Amino acid sequence: MGMERIKTGVVGLGLIGSSICLALRERMGIFPVGVECDQDTADKALKLGIVSDIVSLNEAAENCRFIILAVPVGKILELIEELSSVMCPGSYLTDVGSTKAQIVGKADLILPEGINYLGGHPMAGSEKSGPDGARSDLFEKAPYVLTPTKKTNKKTIEFMKRFVKGIGAEPFYMSPEEHDEYIALISHVPHVIAGALVNSVHNNPKALELAAGGFKDMTRIAMSNPIIWKDICISNKDNIKKGLNNIKALIEKFEKSLDEGDEKKIMDFFERASQTRGKII
Amino acid sequence: MGMERIKTGVVGLGLIGSSICLALRERMGIFPVGVECDQDTADKALKLGIVSDIVSLNEAAENCRFIILAVPVGKILELIEELSSVMCPGSYLTDVGSTKAQIVGKADLILPEGINYLGGHPMAGSEKSGPDGARSDLFEKAPYVLTPTKKTNKKTIEFMKRFVKGIGAEPFYMSPEEHDEYIALISHVPHVIAGALVNSVHNNPKALELAAGGFKDMTRIAMSNPIIWKDICISNKDNIKKGLNNIKALIEKFEKSLDEGDEKKIMDFFERASQTRGKII
Repeated sequence: MGMERIKTGVVGLGLIGSSICLALRERMGIFPVGVECDQDTADKALKLGIVSDIVSLNEAAENCRFIILAVPVGKILELIEELSSVMCPGSYLTDVGSTKAQIVGKADLILPEGINYLGGHPMAGSEKSGPDGARSDLFEKAPYVLTPTKKTNKKTIEFMKRFVKGIGAEPFYMSPEEHDEYIALISHVPHVIAGALVNSVHNNPKALELAAGGFKDMTRIAMSNPIIWKDICISNKDNIKKGLNNIKALIEKFEKSLDEGDEKKIMDFFERASQTRGKII
Repeated sequence: MGMERIKTGVVGLGLIGSSICLALRERMGIFPVGVECDQDTADKALKLGIVSDIVSLNEAAENCRFIILAVPVGKILELIEELSSVMCPGSYLTDVGSTKAQIVGKADLILPEGINYLGGHPMAGSEKSGPDGARSDLFEKAPYVLTPTKKTNKKTIEFMKRFVKGIGAEPFYMSPEEHDEYIALISHVPHVIAGALVNSVHNNPKALELAAGGFKDMTRIAMSNPIIWKDICISNKDNIKKGLNNIKALIEKFEKSLDEGDEKKIMDFFERASQTRGKII
């Protein structure tokens, strides 16, 4: 089936859901319907031309052949259950949850044969939220992780690959478990750390007043939606704890070098960081 | 003395020194001479019109009535000693070091009466370095901390205030000790943490490949000059250790909430961070 004609529904019109809608419309000529229980968000999305219509979950399940779940992890887990009994056989289903093992595990367990599910995670975002912050180019050249399992069929992988490339992103394939391990390191743990940095100056207005570019850059992600991050942390608890313990160990090693006045070790720490970070650009 | 006519020398033509030169030239009509021992950097600065001439430290001390030290903290400490015996009485001296207690303490101790010293710290920067990264608007609306002591005279405070406003920054006044305490929290500790985050994925190319905007923003400052940061950490060791311990405690508290599955406490952590960070913009 060509993607171009496929009736698509996006559940959740936050930043990611709304940006997917805009990218689908501008790049692939697909104008999705939206499912959104928050009336303000729904009104905004309609007004901004992000979706063609707002429908109920059941209407979306009945009429759409491709459904994208773009809600917090906890809500994705609920919706997979709801959709399992109402989606049409032959339809495609994906989610954009920031954790994969728990979600994909549940989908594999409860979705009937005919539902073509593949979990995904676009590595893009912004501290903005909702339809107002949406951009059709949010996924431009961004990594988009797809997490097939033994239960995923080839047709679904092909379909999702076209979708990912269609919105401008680059598909990466790995197991849900690998995804959760890597993403803990480069997203979930940094997010908790950004929260700790900000909270460490919570009661210090003078320090906040002096905060310059470096601090602002480092803590921008702390402005994200607390519900999204609460769900992520619960869902990927073990990997996040492992990552946080690793950070604590690196901090302690650094403190030891400071205590010993070991200039070489202190330099090594910053040099390694500078070199490694230089590889990302 | 009006600043406009004052012969100025900038020692160290890295990002901050070069940007001060450009700001002085464009905004105040002052075209400083530079002192720079790295030949490449000196050549670049001359070629880019950042300084009118490259001179030796002794020539600068002899001819300039305002000297700005824009080198790493360890080097500032050395130069204050060298300059104490060669600067002309009535001249002004400042430094841009990221720690103040050690530097100002030494300056107060060894500079002769006639040298009008006041320590400062512009809260601006970039991950770029050297004359190539210099910008005349780097200090535009940036906080610029000045750290007067009992030994600082009014004339010097007035002079430095005109300089700071002249390059577009906003003067903030506090003691060297207060400065070091606050700046540890919003600059030095975050810098070490950014280093730890990057170093935690040093051996993980797959994680690096997936690194998205949030990780890049959080770790951009890890690309700064390791020598500068080694000096800062040694000079402000106690405040940095205190701040790092505080971050470790916040991480541990968060881990405890995770272990207990306490959704409310996890939400509170992210909500407080989001609200506090929102105050900075």
